[in-house]
Amino acid sequence: MKLEVITVGTELLLGHTLDTNAVDLGRALAAAGVEVTRRTTVADRPAAVRDAVRDALARVAFVLTTGGLGPTSDDLTKTAVAELLGKRLLLDEAVLRRLEQRFRHLGRPMPAANRGQAEVPEGAVVLPNPRGTAPGLWLDDGNGRVVIMLPGVPAEMRGLLLEEVLPRLVARRAAAGEAPRVVLSRTVRTTGSPESAIAERVAPVESGLEPLTLAYLPGPAGVDLRLTAWGLDPEDAERRLAAAGERLREVLGTRCYGDEETDLAAVLLHQLRARGERLAVAESCTGGVLGSRLTAIPGASDTFVGGVIAYDDAVKTALLDVPAAMLAQQGAVSEAVVQAMAAGAQRRFGVAAALAVTGIAGPSGGTPEKPVGTVWVAARHGDRTRALQRIFPGARDEIRARSAQAALDLLRLALLES
Amino acid sequence: MKLEVITVGTELLLGHTLDTNAVDLGRALAAAGVEVTRRTTVADRPAAVRDAVRDALARVAFVLTTGGLGPTSDDLTKTAVAELLGKRLLLDEAVLRRLEQRFRHLGRPMPAANRGQAEVPEGAVVLPNPRGTAPGLWLDDGNGRVVIMLPGVPAEMRGLLLEEVLPRLVARRAAAGEAPRVVLSRTVRTTGSPESAIAERVAPVESGLEPLTLAYLPGPAGVDLRLTAWGLDPEDAERRLAAAGERLREVLGTRCYGDEETDLAAVLLHQLRARGERLAVAESCTGGVLGSRLTAIPGASDTFVGGVIAYDDAVKTALLDVPAAMLAQQGAVSEAVVQAMAAGAQRRFGVAAALAVTGIAGPSGGTPEKPVGTVWVAARHGDRTRALQRIFPGARDEIRARSAQAALDLLRLALLES
Repeated sequence: MKLEVITVGTELLLGHTLDTNAVDLGRALAAAGVEVTRRTTVADRPAAVRDAVRDALARVAFVLTTGGLGPTSDDLTKTAVAELLGKRLLLDEAVLRRLEQRFRHLGRPMPAANRGQAEVPEGAVVLPNPRGTAPGLWLDDGNGRVVIMLPGVPAEMRGLLLEEVLPRLVARRAAAGEAPRVVLSRTVRTTGSPESAIAERVAPVESGLEPLTLAYLPGPAGVDLRLTAWGLDPEDAERRLAAAGERLREVLGTRCYGDEETDLAAVLLHQLRARGERLAVAESCTGGVLGSRLTAIPGASDTFVGGVIAYDDAVKTALLDVPAAMLAQQGAVSEAVVQAMAAGAQRRFGVAAALAVTGIAGPSGGTPEKPVGTVWVAARHGDRTRALQRIFPGARDEIRARSAQAALDLLRLALLES
Repeated sequence: MKLEVITVGTELLLGHTLDTNAVDLGRALAAAGVEVTRRTTVADRPAAVRDAVRDALARVAFVLTTGGLGPTSDDLTKTAVAELLGKRLLLDEAVLRRLEQRFRHLGRPMPAANRGQAEVPEGAVVLPNPRGTAPGLWLDDGNGRVVIMLPGVPAEMRGLLLEEVLPRLVARRAAAGEAPRVVLSRTVRTTGSPESAIAERVAPVESGLEPLTLAYLPGPAGVDLRLTAWGLDPEDAERRLAAAGERLREVLGTRCYGDEETDLAAVLLHQLRARGERLAVAESCTGGVLGSRLTAIPGASDTFVGGVIAYDDAVKTALLDVPAAMLAQQGAVSEAVVQAMAAGAQRRFGVAAALAVTGIAGPSGGTPEKPVGTVWVAARHGDRTRALQRIFPGARDEIRARSAQAALDLLRLALLES
């Protein structure tokens, strides 16, 4: 069951609005076994809407539009679609009564502009919209093609999708004797290795994952691997995804830190909590990013104690006991200093584990020996310290995000081995 | 000058990824006088990419694709477009050398998979991408049609768009002798007042802003006001936007802290720098968010010294000298404690100004007297401390973001008055 989405909105083309409906539509339709094969965004212009719907109907049997159903002059989807399918617009008395009732309830007279919202293409099924003035419309062209029109307001779109559209799509499929076919995905998260190194590990098992597809999604947190089952029976999809996820975790070993939306900070806090150990941080170039990652996790307070943001070198000495002579001789971005920062945090906060970060986040401050992106991270646990140097790519924000992730991962790996 | 955008990514159709590139592309192209007439999102499948590019080239002279240029097996835009236009892929020695150099710089061998990124459709102009491994490509079909291929990674896409693509598009238009008509926007940023209070201030001058449109954009950082000029001559648009921005700033007074993308943290650092004064922070519920806001600003290190993340109450006492008795009697989320935290940070770091935050970010920890969202912020400057209580709406992340913004703003206002 294939469907195309057409989003009507000049604001979206101009980049004034982020298209969050796309996320809701994509997830809900995929989970119901409807494959969205294309999404098209067009301006608030009758010809643009008409052409896009016509082109889509030439490719698939279901077209879902969002936007362009309101009372203002830039709302035109209904008219354009009715014209395309050769349907007249007729006043629907039931819709008109609901509209008038709605305005009475709000204690306001109904503006004349809203009367047009009660016009419906002949033969269309009206999908009641309790959240707004524009109902959804389900318009069958009589030749097995359907255009579904929904308002663009996110809450109204979502409500109509879940309550009116999905049940009808599923019923259609059942009536046609088609077994439900879903698109389901599972994500395996890795960090600390580049996309190409992950791909080399995965290559030997990749063909065995079929018919699932595998996508590599690199980002500052690492490389996520997304497995997707396309158009399978729901149980079959779940079984294959579970088995494929297991296979990936096997070949990836400790590179893999979790599934789906798992945050590495939550994984680390969980490891420490299981041991009854507590954590502190000492941050230079990340300047709070590492602490904010840890404290973003609800319930962090039983395990994360606090930290020192030692942005100025004098703070490294005063609050973390890093010797001034060491700073002068080795420089703030050095193995000796990052180790001293971690040890200082562990001692000052009286905790089992401490993380430290120092580096050059840029854009200035780089040298030929220590270019922008050079970062030292350290993880101290008990009486052992691990330290690691990296040269991260990207701009200031990305270097800081990657630094925090590397620090969290260093301690995760240390705890796995201890 | 009309252009269509084609976004390649199954992830986007499935709703796994929010298409933020659409916003950057829409804004930058509109500001350069290029009209985006359609945006199409297709799956990572060669046929889907080829068909979408072919259809778009039948409608407009410029097609810009994003995504599908990376080294892994799901990257296929270049191959599909080369096939569509009947171009062979040839190894580009200069691109290969840059790739090898990039990996040397990162201290890693170049994986075999990346070699394919050095292949270029014959006749294509390579757009250098200093932020990543995949260069952009500008491919002229010889009949006045151009396909521009950019990677999907947001920072890389944006950099290539601004530095390589827009200058070429503008030069094309100038060569064709077309006068530009632009859609331009300007934003005036406010914080600390709700949308309705801002709207009341603006109402008396709103009609005088025409033909510009005005949109209210509330968010965790405050309420942004966006003025837009539609389809005007560039100079006329600039002049009207400047005058309207001035009028808004007049009626908003100190509620307004900047324009466009100005970050409140940058404004505050600038104020302090002008006075030769330095800043430290003491964070409880924000746990590093405030420090990371400040250190996200390049050059913060001359003004921001550091801070203490005092997540555990024992840290408030040990590192910020908050009396244990005060914590026991008043509770950690109280005016007395936030004031003591700010004073402690000022003294410990030896700085002129200090910020402190303590609150209940949730989801647990709320009480009837102090519900989730209750936050105290304090700004100490010289020997005076201002403190403020707020009850913020939203989830944990939003409460923390709003808390950091409120703390920054409290000190900004104090400095304006002192």
